[in-house]
Amino acid sequence: MPPRSQPSQKSAAAPIAMLTDFGYRDHYVGVMKGVIANIAPDACVIDLTHGLPPQSVTAGAIALAHSWRYFPKRAIFLAVVDPGVGTTRLPIAIDTRAGARFVGPDNGVLYLAAKEAGIKRIVGLRSPQFRLTNVSSTFHGRDIFAPAAAWMSSGTRLTALGPTLKDLTPLALPLPQQRGRTLTGEVIYVDGYGNLVTNLERATLEAFAASFRTASLLVRIAKGTSMEIFQAYGDVPSGAPLAILGSFELLEIAVRDGSAASSFGMAVGASVSVSVVK
Amino acid sequence: MPPRSQPSQKSAAAPIAMLTDFGYRDHYVGVMKGVIANIAPDACVIDLTHGLPPQSVTAGAIALAHSWRYFPKRAIFLAVVDPGVGTTRLPIAIDTRAGARFVGPDNGVLYLAAKEAGIKRIVGLRSPQFRLTNVSSTFHGRDIFAPAAAWMSSGTRLTALGPTLKDLTPLALPLPQQRGRTLTGEVIYVDGYGNLVTNLERATLEAFAASFRTASLLVRIAKGTSMEIFQAYGDVPSGAPLAILGSFELLEIAVRDGSAASSFGMAVGASVSVSVVK
Amino acid sequence: MPPRSQPSQKSAAAPIAMLTDFGYRDHYVGVMKGVIANIAPDACVIDLTHGLPPQSVTAGAIALAHSWRYFPKRAIFLAVVDPGVGTTRLPIAIDTRAGARFVGPDNGVLYLAAKEAGIKRIVGLRSPQFRLTNVSSTFHGRDIFAPAAAWMSSGTRLTALGPTLKDLTPLALPLPQQRGRTLTGEVIYVDGYGNLVTNLERATLEAFAASFRTASLLVRIAKGTSMEIFQAYGDVPSGAPLAILGSFELLEIAVRDGSAASSFGMAVGASVSVSVVK
Repeated sequence: MPPRSQPSQKSAAAPIAMLTDFGYRDHYVGVMKGVIANIAPDACVIDLTHGLPPQSVTAGAIALAHSWRYFPKRAIFLAVVDPGVGTTRLPIAIDTRAGARFVGPDNGVLYLAAKEAGIKRIVGLRSPQFRLTNVSSTFHGRDIFAPAAAWMSSGTRLTALGPTLKDLTPLALPLPQQRGRTLTGEVIYVDGYGNLVTNLERATLEAFAASFRTASLLVRIAKGTSMEIFQAYGDVPSGAPLAILGSFELLEIAVRDGSAASSFGMAVGASVSVSVVK
Repeated sequence: MPPRSQPSQKSAAAPIAMLTDFGYRDHYVGVMKGVIANIAPDACVIDLTHGLPPQSVTAGAIALAHSWRYFPKRAIFLAVVDPGVGTTRLPIAIDTRAGARFVGPDNGVLYLAAKEAGIKRIVGLRSPQFRLTNVSSTFHGRDIFAPAAAWMSSGTRLTALGPTLKDLTPLALPLPQQRGRTLTGEVIYVDGYGNLVTNLERATLEAFAASFRTASLLVRIAKGTSMEIFQAYGDVPSGAPLAILGSFELLEIAVRDGSAASSFGMAVGASVSVSVVK
Repeated sequence: MPPRSQPSQKSAAAPIAMLTDFGYRDHYVGVMKGVIANIAPDACVIDLTHGLPPQSVTAGAIALAHSWRYFPKRAIFLAVVDPGVGTTRLPIAIDTRAGARFVGPDNGVLYLAAKEAGIKRIVGLRSPQFRLTNVSSTFHGRDIFAPAAAWMSSGTRLTALGPTLKDLTPLALPLPQQRGRTLTGEVIYVDGYGNLVTNLERATLEAFAASFRTASLLVRIAKGTSMEIFQAYGDVPSGAPLAILGSFELLEIAVRDGSAASSFGMAVGASVSVSVVK
């Protein structure tokens, strides 16, 4: 890529990318943006999405892991999927070696992205002067997380926000299993088109195929019909199913101009197997 | 809170927070943002929400009343829930003692927030030079309201927009009723999680409890099961119902990891009673 | 309109208006915004909508044609409705005599708006240095279109992006047919309120009425009840159907405080006839 154009202000506020399961019906996300505008009027706020499946920490973690690399280096990711709000789970912020910074509950939602970016420091968001004056037990997005992201965006150092923590609560994702000439994974995410995204990565599939000296693999969902892996949705006729390595380098099951989730009646957790053609 | 960081430009345009029932399917909200960008290219536009229940003036008024305090002092709230568009209801703008400014139809949607912020001046948006050239009878959001908000954001004085008006059309909200040891309110809003938000405020409940020298209250929806008031969603097991003082200081009925609206089959208008434990 | 307020920076980045069918559930749109922020940190990104009916090139073309005029003169429209992603359809950018610029697939989605704005130059987005390093076959929004829009916004000239092309793939829209005293069109778009938007333009209807020296027309959908054309939704009682010239100068069938799509059970393609009152 050509060199980035220079920001017009010397010390421009870092952009804040928001990721929540709050949906688009209520004013909750809007209120968080009001809090940010109040503290950091120059911060650019970008909606990553607010349409995550309600309270699905895993979906949030995957979306964040697939997104952070595409943002400006010092972007702050404000990720609030927080079924445990008001309980003992800690509000945290993370600085990473890649530059990206993360704010959210310590329940696994930040885990995959922060690991990829290389954790440099984790702090607990305990300093009262960087929270709103009254902290509710139901809306830490507004009272703790949005203020922290805004202060970070306008230059507040991580260590001012609270004490350094040792560890992050991990997120347990299912791993693919190989048995003989078959590799078995599962659906970990269903996108808005009904595409079934699996935990089978391009690199894993390539290594698996190479070990059998073939490039020819067959994909099968829940013991149903076999499908080949295609390069583009347009490679099959309208209405036909296909397997494809999607835009995040994960194997997906799709139906051209349709929904694989509806067609196959499958959801998160469905088994997907990949076999070597004999 | 620590002092706000200073905006980098001396006379930065005031942010515009938008609240509509236009939904996310069509280009209507986007067109309004185009109109704003045309008039006030530096104005920061913040989506409060566009997912209000269609044509529900009450839902808009409540969302606005719960939100405005969290925004920068001189923010402009552009609220368009306008079932009477093209009829005799007036398009108005309001300046308040708290600093917040409001633009929208005079049908009650601005009422609660403007009252709280302290009305300083109301004007009718009659000046043709601050509207688009052709005003339709179906889309005043684009033709009248967005231009007014944009001109206000770039410094146009309220009195330039049209003649001063005396009064605002009020919004009639139901008030809780006390009979003996029972206080009865109702559901006034159902949020996207299915939480049932009532018209019972924390202060009202505290005064009610104090008058009986108790802190122990039982909540009942539509004569169903009694629930205690908890501090956090996480205080009950997954799937269990609870009452809670939500993030806007109103009593809510919720179901942990679920939807109270679905579980109880309840909607706006459902009766909620609070009784002193004997 | 009074003169536009001056942008505060001499060479401010042109705003980018996004229009997709990606929906609000996934992080796809957010990732495109990350890519834009990375290349053009000062560009203001405006959501036109992401709620287009999935893979409906026609709906995208209509929304864009109805919107572009309301935006700042040099706005860049990034329109991604792309069922043929990864196949032979070309990624393109267009400069127009009106000033507006368009980026998207050459499948008709840009056609109506670009024709209206007056095509000056079309280029194929072939230059690798203005794409992301790895171009997937499933997400050109992220890998080709968003980078192109961002580079254009920060001043890159169209001719740097790729070779000039001669023609645009046209979009075939149905045309109204006149037979005697009846003009027949059809529903081309259903908006989020359930309003049925037709291909009958105000000018066409006025010429039709004038040719019979009348102003009195009756509208009928799919041979059902006749309706008059009203000025405002509020001109009929709640729940009543009406015909109206909507905010985009097209004849619409609506139901006050309701959904015409549900009431009439009609969708895109339904026949709508307009007759002279005898």
